[in-house]
Amino acid sequence: MRPLLVEIARDTLMNALQHVTKAVDVHNPIPILQGIHIQARADGIIFTASNASMTIRAESPQDGASVTVRRTGAVVIPSRYFHDVIRKLHDERILLETNEQLIVTVKSGHSQVRLCGMDPYEFPSLSGEQSAPRRLSINSASLKSAIKQVATMASTSETRPVLTGVSVECNHDSITFIATDGVRLATRNLDAEGNISETFRAIIPAKNLYEMSKMLSSEDEITGIEVSNSRVRFATHGLKVESARIEGAFPSIMNAIPQAYLCEFTVERAHLLAAVECVTVLASDNIIKLVASHHLLKLLSRTPEVGDIENAVPLTEMSGEGFAISVNGKFLTDILRHSDCSGVRVRYAGPTSPIVILPDDPNISALFLVTPVRTHN
Amino acid sequence: MRPLLVEIARDTLMNALQHVTKAVDVHNPIPILQGIHIQARADGIIFTASNASMTIRAESPQDGASVTVRRTGAVVIPSRYFHDVIRKLHDERILLETNEQLIVTVKSGHSQVRLCGMDPYEFPSLSGEQSAPRRLSINSASLKSAIKQVATMASTSETRPVLTGVSVECNHDSITFIATDGVRLATRNLDAEGNISETFRAIIPAKNLYEMSKMLSSEDEITGIEVSNSRVRFATHGLKVESARIEGAFPSIMNAIPQAYLCEFTVERAHLLAAVECVTVLASDNIIKLVASHHLLKLLSRTPEVGDIENAVPLTEMSGEGFAISVNGKFLTDILRHSDCSGVRVRYAGPTSPIVILPDDPNISALFLVTPVRTHN
Repeated sequence: MRPLLVEIARDTLMNALQHVTKAVDVHNPIPILQGIHIQARADGIIFTASNASMTIRAESPQDGASVTVRRTGAVVIPSRYFHDVIRKLHDERILLETNEQLIVTVKSGHSQVRLCGMDPYEFPSLSGEQSAPRRLSINSASLKSAIKQVATMASTSETRPVLTGVSVECNHDSITFIATDGVRLATRNLDAEGNISETFRAIIPAKNLYEMSKMLSSEDEITGIEVSNSRVRFATHGLKVESARIEGAFPSIMNAIPQAYLCEFTVERAHLLAAVECVTVLASDNIIKLVASHHLLKLLSRTPEVGDIENAVPLTEMSGEGFAISVNGKFLTDILRHSDCSGVRVRYAGPTSPIVILPDDPNISALFLVTPVRTHN
Repeated sequence: MRPLLVEIARDTLMNALQHVTKAVDVHNPIPILQGIHIQARADGIIFTASNASMTIRAESPQDGASVTVRRTGAVVIPSRYFHDVIRKLHDERILLETNEQLIVTVKSGHSQVRLCGMDPYEFPSLSGEQSAPRRLSINSASLKSAIKQVATMASTSETRPVLTGVSVECNHDSITFIATDGVRLATRNLDAEGNISETFRAIIPAKNLYEMSKMLSSEDEITGIEVSNSRVRFATHGLKVESARIEGAFPSIMNAIPQAYLCEFTVERAHLLAAVECVTVLASDNIIKLVASHHLLKLLSRTPEVGDIENAVPLTEMSGEGFAISVNGKFLTDILRHSDCSGVRVRYAGPTSPIVILPDDPNISALFLVTPVRTHN
């Protein structure tokens, strides 16, 4: 094994570690899978961590300032100890060196750390899938917002694995994200950058997508997406995240969205969110009742033996008949927290149809559904 | 039961609740002990919570602005629900009203909450101990700092109950706080405001003292302390905290403090703290080795099969012979975090004597001990 020798700024190293450690499987009994693969190349340092579902690569290019590669080579370092030690070093420059016995020496200021490294050839290699991938590009800030809105609505139960994923459908010039846990549903549509030659569908584990979204910049950057038969890759400013795909057919959402409404109103989002959160405090099993009438939405809940609560928010616009319906207050809170706009439009299509919630903003093409709860009163 | 009716500003109510809920015993199977006693009097509202060990009273005086008492009376409200509901109300003014059936109605803006209250006569009454208390006054900011330094060193194991307490010794014009868990010890001395006629000792549960210190202002205020046979009371800006005393004899610390030293040095506190925290990351069982020589303190640790680490800090002053000793790195970290000064003085009195650490500041009369760990190398 060729011993590496690199100099790296503490902040650059911490930044790379913070990203890749998201893919480290700290509970894996095989030590190498608790490690971070470090490869020093002539053009920079590549940090890689991988679990069965996700691989994250962070590249720190050689620039003569924050990264200097003095000798190329590779090693795998135990993630937890390495991260903990680097966090506690306070000097700006860090020297990493390995020897033939795979001992990693970290020098910084008055500190000298020696850690037992592992053989980089034992690290799982990145998939070299040969099928021609389909590619598209998307604005990073929009992608981050879309994933935040949609991914939290996916199921966390493994009973139906497809529902733990987000369905990504690409249709020439737009991309649609859909997630549902069977009780609520979120969908968001984004324009792709440039035309896309092909159409495709993929189901991506929601938790991978969510971790990836946290690494995306809110700046006006571009994220490249590459979809091949078994994997999806995202690439943005020095980071590559590869996720497994979930096999199976995602349920069709078109049947779930009611097409005609008995009542529709708009309401200030922050105001409605505060009222829902307040009423949910006393909601037995989180069930709150919504009663819309005369440009006012009443919210009610009760917990037997403890008490009840009533709240009201004014509606800015209302058409159709009033209605009364019960929903899960926590689910409604999740939707309102993630709808990212100042007003929302709420549609009621009857006592057994899901409530439809839309951001009242023509620039955000998102839609949320929440199924009502049957109650005896 | 006389039904109360009060108007109170949300911030004033939240502030009182945040203090008194510290004494609510949320796991107590008796509902009334999970409650907050609210008494509306002509001069203001008194909030009280109490568990077996501590009682906290917060007074919100009637001032016509933030507190208006329209009808005096009392009730006990379930703490958790009440606190959660108030937290979620966003309007500035809150109206609290009870009826003959002890239903508490909370009105604020568009919200109306009804909670089942409990009979205030069932609430444990505050101790009306008749023994003449001994009184003293102390600067609140100094008291806060002293408790922070000392209380964290008390034992958390119930094996020797006296060690879960802080010994408070009052000797005419000064007061001494001492805590030890048998391995480390902290003591701090403060001047009392004015002369005190009597001397006394009391052992106060460290966790009560610590909760109380968090309520103390860092401003230049005064805290009154009253010690009676079974209780200690603290009073400061509208808050009264009463704690049980721990029975028993606190170990004498005079025997524990070494009187002659083989080596003594001073060192920058932040620098030493950073080095100890760094080295402790790789310390098996938290054991780190300190080696002092030639105005340099080396710190070393190792975890078998993982690696080792070495760090060094320069000493600003050193007298006597060099030494090598092993200590618990977490304990040393606790001491250094709480010593509240820019430099510390460290004294070594031999391989089996505790290390002495003193703030290098004539205004802070504190002393910490940490017992060395025997190692085989």
